[in-house]
Amino acid sequence: MLIVGENISVTSKVVGDSLRNKDPEPVINMAKAQKEAGAHYVDVNIGPATKSGEELMQWVVTTIQNAVDIPLALDTKNISAIEAGLQVHKGTAMINSVTGDQDKLDALMPLAKKYNAKIVGIALNEKGVPPDVDSRIEIIMNIVNSALEHGVPLKDLYLDPIVLPVAVLQEQVFNCIEGLKAFKQLKDLMELPEEPRTIVGLSNVSQSSPPELKSLINRTYVTILLSHGLDSAILDPLDRELMHSIKTFDILSNRILYAHSYLDN
Amino acid sequence: MLIVGENISVTSKVVGDSLRNKDPEPVINMAKAQKEAGAHYVDVNIGPATKSGEELMQWVVTTIQNAVDIPLALDTKNISAIEAGLQVHKGTAMINSVTGDQDKLDALMPLAKKYNAKIVGIALNEKGVPPDVDSRIEIIMNIVNSALEHGVPLKDLYLDPIVLPVAVLQEQVFNCIEGLKAFKQLKDLMELPEEPRTIVGLSNVSQSSPPELKSLINRTYVTILLSHGLDSAILDPLDRELMHSIKTFDILSNRILYAHSYLDN
Repeated sequence: MLIVGENISVTSKVVGDSLRNKDPEPVINMAKAQKEAGAHYVDVNIGPATKSGEELMQWVVTTIQNAVDIPLALDTKNISAIEAGLQVHKGTAMINSVTGDQDKLDALMPLAKKYNAKIVGIALNEKGVPPDVDSRIEIIMNIVNSALEHGVPLKDLYLDPIVLPVAVLQEQVFNCIEGLKAFKQLKDLMELPEEPRTIVGLSNVSQSSPPELKSLINRTYVTILLSHGLDSAILDPLDRELMHSIKTFDILSNRILYAHSYLDN
Repeated sequence: MLIVGENISVTSKVVGDSLRNKDPEPVINMAKAQKEAGAHYVDVNIGPATKSGEELMQWVVTTIQNAVDIPLALDTKNISAIEAGLQVHKGTAMINSVTGDQDKLDALMPLAKKYNAKIVGIALNEKGVPPDVDSRIEIIMNIVNSALEHGVPLKDLYLDPIVLPVAVLQEQVFNCIEGLKAFKQLKDLMELPEEPRTIVGLSNVSQSSPPELKSLINRTYVTILLSHGLDSAILDPLDRELMHSIKTFDILSNRILYAHSYLDN
């Protein structure tokens, strides 16, 4: 599974301060720690970034990549900040994310193509998260079509069925699993050359749950989603028990070779 | 999920001594503890019991059920000990287990019918565990046919795809998942009125793994199996983390209502 570390987010005070003061140490250390814990990508959520977003994204991308050899997921609603980040990014970046809105698709898909970036397509439109699976599938089909039209390879597109908090919208959690299965079936429905890849923002599932339950809920949910073919997740790689569950899934599904020491590798 | 507690087994010294000396306290306490931890059935494995098996099984069944209100899974290769146990058992017993061998089927299916007992059918024959999924399906189809012929209701039959230790036969672990999915598909293949129920002996998966890995492997595996429709498992209900994973699966799949305190219930 492709693991995207979620920890560099403006919603955390440390990261917010680091970005505001252009203080490199905190973001560099967080990128390093997440890479060491097993992240393949590190998400960089700079928030709406309406003011000087381009400069801020370029600062954070170069600051992290000059110190840590890891690709980044560029996470902001500011489209020109995304492009600014792509201009200075080394390796294959990820754009996080594009919704089903046509103007967003028309702006971001060409960027994914131009910069050979991966892109997350999320089952969301201007009205928010549709409660039913069928509407989410409709949005996602529109996103897949847009990727194909703009020449973005299917393997670079990650489809997000939207994880909602079990404490608030329990029945929607099941919809996400149904969505995941349905997205895989788009291969047949849309006559695609392969199954589309899928991604989730895992921690959403335990939002609003008590702190002592979060890791248990996250790791149980990721195991269920992996059982249904999940390809990638944005999650906290510093949660050791979560990472142990993912490794154990890989062992039990015969993806990596068992050894008594498999947790230590 | 129907949870069958595995702890009363002659392979443990405490249980072995209790059975040999007809000392009621240990088996009663173990039955009580497993019920309190969430077991719906308690397995009673008295071993081959070739000598005085009937008397031993009747002693242990009445000893436990006089003290604890819980049904039992009668677990021995000694068929007349199984029948002796069924004669004194209160409520719906479970017979654990019948293989695909015709003489076993001809002896045990009539007992399941006569005593209205549940029965575990296991994908095993006189040659042992077939390494491939197809042979296991063949054995299981024979077991299903035998149940139907003898008038055992499908809802009382639990099919076991055989869990093998990941430390020894890693690729077989995946076969078990494939088997589980295939057994569910027998509904269409054999034109059954409903999907057959499934069961596993969970702890086998972590046999030969280091003690510190066992619970992690067991709880990850049960989550995968539940994701593929597992209905029942023989497991250690005193493993709190395992039971927490099962409860969390039930929450995430919307089977029981979420509350912040769901682990306490």
